[in-house]
Amino acid sequence: MATSKEMTLDDLFLDTLKDIYYAEKQIVKALPKMAKAAQDPALKAGFEKHMDETQGHIDRLEQVFDIIGKPARGKTCDAILGILEEGKSIMDEFKGTVALDAGLIAAGQAVEHYEMARYGTLRTWATRLGYADAAKLFETTLLEERATDQALTQLAEAGGDNAKAA
Amino acid sequence: MATSKEMTLDDLFLDTLKDIYYAEKQIVKALPKMAKAAQDPALKAGFEKHMDETQGHIDRLEQVFDIIGKPARGKTCDAILGILEEGKSIMDEFKGTVALDAGLIAAGQAVEHYEMARYGTLRTWATRLGYADAAKLFETTLLEERATDQALTQLAEAGGDNAKAA
Repeated sequence: MATSKEMTLDDLFLDTLKDIYYAEKQIVKALPKMAKAAQDPALKAGFEKHMDETQGHIDRLEQVFDIIGKPARGKTCDAILGILEEGKSIMDEFKGTVALDAGLIAAGQAVEHYEMARYGTLRTWATRLGYADAAKLFETTLLEERATDQALTQLAEAGGDNAKAA
Repeated sequence: MATSKEMTLDDLFLDTLKDIYYAEKQIVKALPKMAKAAQDPALKAGFEKHMDETQGHIDRLEQVFDIIGKPARGKTCDAILGILEEGKSIMDEFKGTVALDAGLIAAGQAVEHYEMARYGTLRTWATRLGYADAAKLFETTLLEERATDQALTQLAEAGGDNAKAA
């Protein structure tokens, strides 16, 4: 490990790669619970589809570790733990209510946005560091996260969750 | 307070409003530290500009509490605490290195994305609940968060942070 003053963008890149690798592994564990809790079949199907995609994101991250010649290892990511904890609170608090699906959609979008921030950053850094293949892998995942976020927005706007009904 | 089964989108809306109100108050405290740490003058100026905007976001949230006839109160937001904690770790770990600014930009973008997720959700719910004025306030803030995120992306891509230099 480099001493503090010598640390460069390569170290920050590896740090952030470990962060999102840990985050994706947490997300892949949380998604089945969100899919199970969802009442609207379209929302349930959306979470299930994204479970498969998330496994693909983990595979791509492992390819990037391989590209930079480092072992695939996670590093505790406080951000995703906080975001998922908040989603869990909503699931508990709104369980059995008409607003549960709306809460699940919101929780899902908070997760997607965290991932979009991280993959956007990693893509930019990969390009700057000359890892063109890694940049392409991040870009592919980023597009899937964006598409998931947009699908959740459509579900929220359609109001299929029927959350206004008393 | 409604009992669990009776809770509707109105309750979830208020819950999420309290969540982002707490988050904005944490962000307004974190931004001066990020501005102080930033080495690139353009990044420093960006954080300072966003400090003023964030105060405006807090004011708008207080207007929304007023619209729905509830006192402006925050509720601990685990997500923003995790996101800011992660930013703080990066600031500590990369202090005095060439990669610090790149880390600050990444931390800033994680914050912006959390806010974009929340304001998008709140705008959609405000529209569904018939709070047209509140929806407009959320939209205005959402556009400012997006613009800040885009400005940070440009700084990251421009590489003014010089993070590659050894």
